[in-house]
Amino acid sequence: MTIENDVLVSENQLTAFSTQILKNIGVPSNDAEIVVKNLIEADLRGVYSHGVVRFPIYVKRILDGGTNPKARMSILRETRTTAVIDGDNGLGHLVGVQAMQLAIEKAAEGDCVFVAVKNSNHFGAAAYYTEMAARHNMIGFSFTIGAINHMTPWGGAEAMLGNNPFSVAFPTREDFPVVLDMACSIAARGKIIVAAKEGKPIPNDWATGPDGLPTTDAVEALKGFVTPLGGPKGYALTLTVGLLSTMLSGAFFGSDVGDLYEETSTAQNSGHLFGVLPVSSFDEIENYLSRMDKAMADMRNAKKATGIERIYLPGEREHLSLLKSRKEGIPLGQALFKELVALGEKHHLSLEKIG
Amino acid sequence: MTIENDVLVSENQLTAFSTQILKNIGVPSNDAEIVVKNLIEADLRGVYSHGVVRFPIYVKRILDGGTNPKARMSILRETRTTAVIDGDNGLGHLVGVQAMQLAIEKAAEGDCVFVAVKNSNHFGAAAYYTEMAARHNMIGFSFTIGAINHMTPWGGAEAMLGNNPFSVAFPTREDFPVVLDMACSIAARGKIIVAAKEGKPIPNDWATGPDGLPTTDAVEALKGFVTPLGGPKGYALTLTVGLLSTMLSGAFFGSDVGDLYEETSTAQNSGHLFGVLPVSSFDEIENYLSRMDKAMADMRNAKKATGIERIYLPGEREHLSLLKSRKEGIPLGQALFKELVALGEKHHLSLEKIG
Repeated sequence: MTIENDVLVSENQLTAFSTQILKNIGVPSNDAEIVVKNLIEADLRGVYSHGVVRFPIYVKRILDGGTNPKARMSILRETRTTAVIDGDNGLGHLVGVQAMQLAIEKAAEGDCVFVAVKNSNHFGAAAYYTEMAARHNMIGFSFTIGAINHMTPWGGAEAMLGNNPFSVAFPTREDFPVVLDMACSIAARGKIIVAAKEGKPIPNDWATGPDGLPTTDAVEALKGFVTPLGGPKGYALTLTVGLLSTMLSGAFFGSDVGDLYEETSTAQNSGHLFGVLPVSSFDEIENYLSRMDKAMADMRNAKKATGIERIYLPGEREHLSLLKSRKEGIPLGQALFKELVALGEKHHLSLEKIG
Repeated sequence: MTIENDVLVSENQLTAFSTQILKNIGVPSNDAEIVVKNLIEADLRGVYSHGVVRFPIYVKRILDGGTNPKARMSILRETRTTAVIDGDNGLGHLVGVQAMQLAIEKAAEGDCVFVAVKNSNHFGAAAYYTEMAARHNMIGFSFTIGAINHMTPWGGAEAMLGNNPFSVAFPTREDFPVVLDMACSIAARGKIIVAAKEGKPIPNDWATGPDGLPTTDAVEALKGFVTPLGGPKGYALTLTVGLLSTMLSGAFFGSDVGDLYEETSTAQNSGHLFGVLPVSSFDEIENYLSRMDKAMADMRNAKKATGIERIYLPGEREHLSLLKSRKEGIPLGQALFKELVALGEKHHLSLEKIG
């Protein structure tokens, strides 16, 4: 994914830089460390859409009063296998880690546990949380509601749904879990923005115009809506992920959802749902892990399509990216690098390129 | 979905007919009733791909020794929130109902419960099970492994994955739950079969040929593989659903999966996973139901795309189909009707058209 004019920065420096800025704007030191570790892992894994590219808006929301830098999560309701958390309008990365941590702790005796969250914010990459569970030999689930409505109900012409992401992770014997992390649109909205800037048409299944009908005009598409995967299937899927993320806790859904970027002084009341299934309650862990070994080998050893050299498991490319970026540095686009440098200047902090 | 030359048959007669045939080939009366109710509900709901169109193969598998007509499910392992079931190679519809029933019973005190299943068979429509949970004010999950491998790992050219279906259902105040029920391919394989018969090309994103590369030639596509929704996303999704359905119980996955239609004398060792989240453990049920009311209204009241008169919730069309077919009869294609009539003749049973 590294392109020629990307800038490389070191994980350590980017971490120290981002953590210090959060501390400067009122986030307690320990909380800032949790948030930044989560955020930068997305960049390390090559999931740049959910990494430091979002950092400036998180900072702006705190400064504008939309997000609470000193949030203290509370448990609103709890049974031995469930909990509902009020995130106190804290940074979603912090709330999410605390909620998944609670699910893992509650599952220590082998129970299936689900934790619903309200009053949270954009939590970054959904895989971060399920990987926490996988490290405890639990299958992990995470669901969240998108922080902007960009999608319509099927047949609609009004943004009532987020492009809602979810993740499932499976423990393995290897040094990474098999992990699904996906949202529900055919193409990321960012790709449509690029086409519009370049005056190029887009495939007719990427988006609909403001009338709700498919368009190849990228400018019209930006006034319209991103198209769900598989049409009505993707609508049903993003609705399902959205309902899982909000209905059990009372987080905002549908017409109540604000805009991450536009409404920066208003709490988003984002919702999430985290779940864990401890493997050892179903079978000896070694039996399960041997089955996973065989399943992974089946995928990798399948006959390759013409021109393909290697088949990857979900999460494997991201793991390889992490190993590489940890060693060589994290690639940032020039524009993002400049934006971060400018942000740093306000805090008398510098950010250096590697080499 | 009714087309001009479809035949209408009554729910009651189709039920009595199918139940008697199962009893004739050794299925205990009570079990046969459970299976047929499940099977015919798919037809009533308009999900014809999972209704009596599959009945002849279920019968053949019992006669050929591939499925056990007198199966007795057993619990291999159990905790207060988990169970692993051995389906004794019984009809999947029966095993599935018993497994979801167990999950619901175990959740009576408010726990999140997951039940994994091995030694089962094709279980029909995934929504049947999650709707059982929704009727108990629980969010229901079901996952199953497809009974034939038709999909490749992304970049592969060998069928190692089923088009694995899953369902999530949400209780509502209306007379149907909001229910997602989907598999992971762009187009059903049946559509490719139709195009091949008619000598027509197919869109280039429906399937790949035997070389694993996209094709518009329907005949080549049938020698190849169905394409997952959203490319690598759909691969990761069908892999995830398959792993959830098999890894916790030891059901067959990947290279071990046989063919529902071709290997009729061999046990399939199909796997499923069922889960329930009791709503009242998270919030007062009335609060949750009011939120669902509002969410459903948000979808329905969204501005419509040009030419669209009504927006449906997932599961709503199926519910309307059920009401209609219960009153007017179930539409069956001519070829399927003839196949069932011929099957009936072997059992001295008749099947009549309505009107």
